[in-house]
Amino acid sequence: MHPLDVAVALTATEVNCFLGATSPAYANMVGPFGGVSSSLLLNAALQHPDCQGLPIALTVNFTAPMDDGEIAVLTRLVKANRSTQHWLVEAQQAGSVVALATAVFAERRATWSAPEAPAPQNLPAPHALPRLNMAGLPIWTQRYDMRVIDGGMPKGLDGQQQADSYSSSWVRDDPPRPMDFLSLAAVSDSFFPRIFLRRRRMMPVGTVSLTTYFHADQAMLAAQGEDYVLGVAHALAFRQGFFDQSAQIWSRAGELLASSHQIVYFKD
Amino acid sequence: MHPLDVAVALTATEVNCFLGATSPAYANMVGPFGGVSSSLLLNAALQHPDCQGLPIALTVNFTAPMDDGEIAVLTRLVKANRSTQHWLVEAQQAGSVVALATAVFAERRATWSAPEAPAPQNLPAPHALPRLNMAGLPIWTQRYDMRVIDGGMPKGLDGQQQADSYSSSWVRDDPPRPMDFLSLAAVSDSFFPRIFLRRRRMMPVGTVSLTTYFHADQAMLAAQGEDYVLGVAHALAFRQGFFDQSAQIWSRAGELLASSHQIVYFKD
Repeated sequence: MHPLDVAVALTATEVNCFLGATSPAYANMVGPFGGVSSSLLLNAALQHPDCQGLPIALTVNFTAPMDDGEIAVLTRLVKANRSTQHWLVEAQQAGSVVALATAVFAERRATWSAPEAPAPQNLPAPHALPRLNMAGLPIWTQRYDMRVIDGGMPKGLDGQQQADSYSSSWVRDDPPRPMDFLSLAAVSDSFFPRIFLRRRRMMPVGTVSLTTYFHADQAMLAAQGEDYVLGVAHALAFRQGFFDQSAQIWSRAGELLASSHQIVYFKD
Repeated sequence: MHPLDVAVALTATEVNCFLGATSPAYANMVGPFGGVSSSLLLNAALQHPDCQGLPIALTVNFTAPMDDGEIAVLTRLVKANRSTQHWLVEAQQAGSVVALATAVFAERRATWSAPEAPAPQNLPAPHALPRLNMAGLPIWTQRYDMRVIDGGMPKGLDGQQQADSYSSSWVRDDPPRPMDFLSLAAVSDSFFPRIFLRRRRMMPVGTVSLTTYFHADQAMLAAQGEDYVLGVAHALAFRQGFFDQSAQIWSRAGELLASSHQIVYFKD
């Protein structure tokens, strides 16, 4: 079983109640990697026998630090019509809410479709770039094979400020795993906090709210398979303890699979 | 009383229960303008006697069409610590959920702060530009004085496709109103659906999920006052019945007040 599938595994205990657990393979500095928690909450809706359609939007609010151990996940189908479902998903530890998510599922229909943002072009192949060395970083970073194309922190953590936090990288699950909505939700949060790049130093940070929009359907995910995705991320503003960051996940074929946005607390 | 204050007014009926109503001044094609509904749900948390801190993040999922008339708004303080509060807000009509929101409030502290995205420069003054003619458009558009700087639909609704949907405009409440978090939440959704611009034609659309990040504190809002804000919006992809759009709201002084993201259903 792939470590991601272990990390997001849920057992139905009764209607609308599931039981999961944090996974050592995705440990972060405090608690689990947020991308995997986001995927776990999405999985509760996906596993629900009433779930219909494909994930369109997922917002996860991280309400309290998550301890290592069991997580109870409660689902509620708030509203459904023929083509759309709205879910509320709540993760609890010791009776206290540690994460709260809303998720939208819908049938996708053939319509006029067009990209607007152009996919980055003329990129070096993943294997032409060195794999990012994760020594000294939290365990979860070892679950991703990342190869920086542009931006990032070429000068390392020297505490000098950079003018921007833009980065683009090839990213793949390690070990490789066929892309599905669970891995797409997780990888959409695999970008280092932009303030680490701007200030070239680490500090306590925590995602407060994370929103992921899924642009892919099953066919696009199947075509992507186990290949690398292109991840691009940037920020707009850092102010008074909070910053935002936005990311796009592109397929090898240059199609936008997901876009994600988050607001992050920081303590300097 | 300003029409926005009428539209978002709530009466506490019991603990965690409020009563509001749709407002003809912000009528959209079907039901009310989503920005005002977003503001109404935010207001329920703001009005709650337990609310502390400033709004940081707001996600509103539009779960069903909203009818004209009364709206019951239910609040739940899901989690709070010394500096942060997580709220869940549910809007109901006839016992059915029509909108579901999560909101994060937090104390803002003095920290290292810096912009990353540069504010657009060398812009013509609002009064040097013509006011956008809203004839034939839904009533809510008359509540905004909009002056297009760049992009938009200079050639009108001729059904020809454009290469992109970027636009930048000056926007102000009409009548003018001092900026607060309620008007900031509403104006963050005042951008025309990007597919109207891309395809230069109108079609049935509906925001499914809308996320707003508030970068402003009270001092920045006070400095903004009744002045125009700069609104910039774009999309990433239109595919199989859904597209995303992102927007930034800049103060006249060039500070980012809010950024917002949404995913929108369309029917062509």
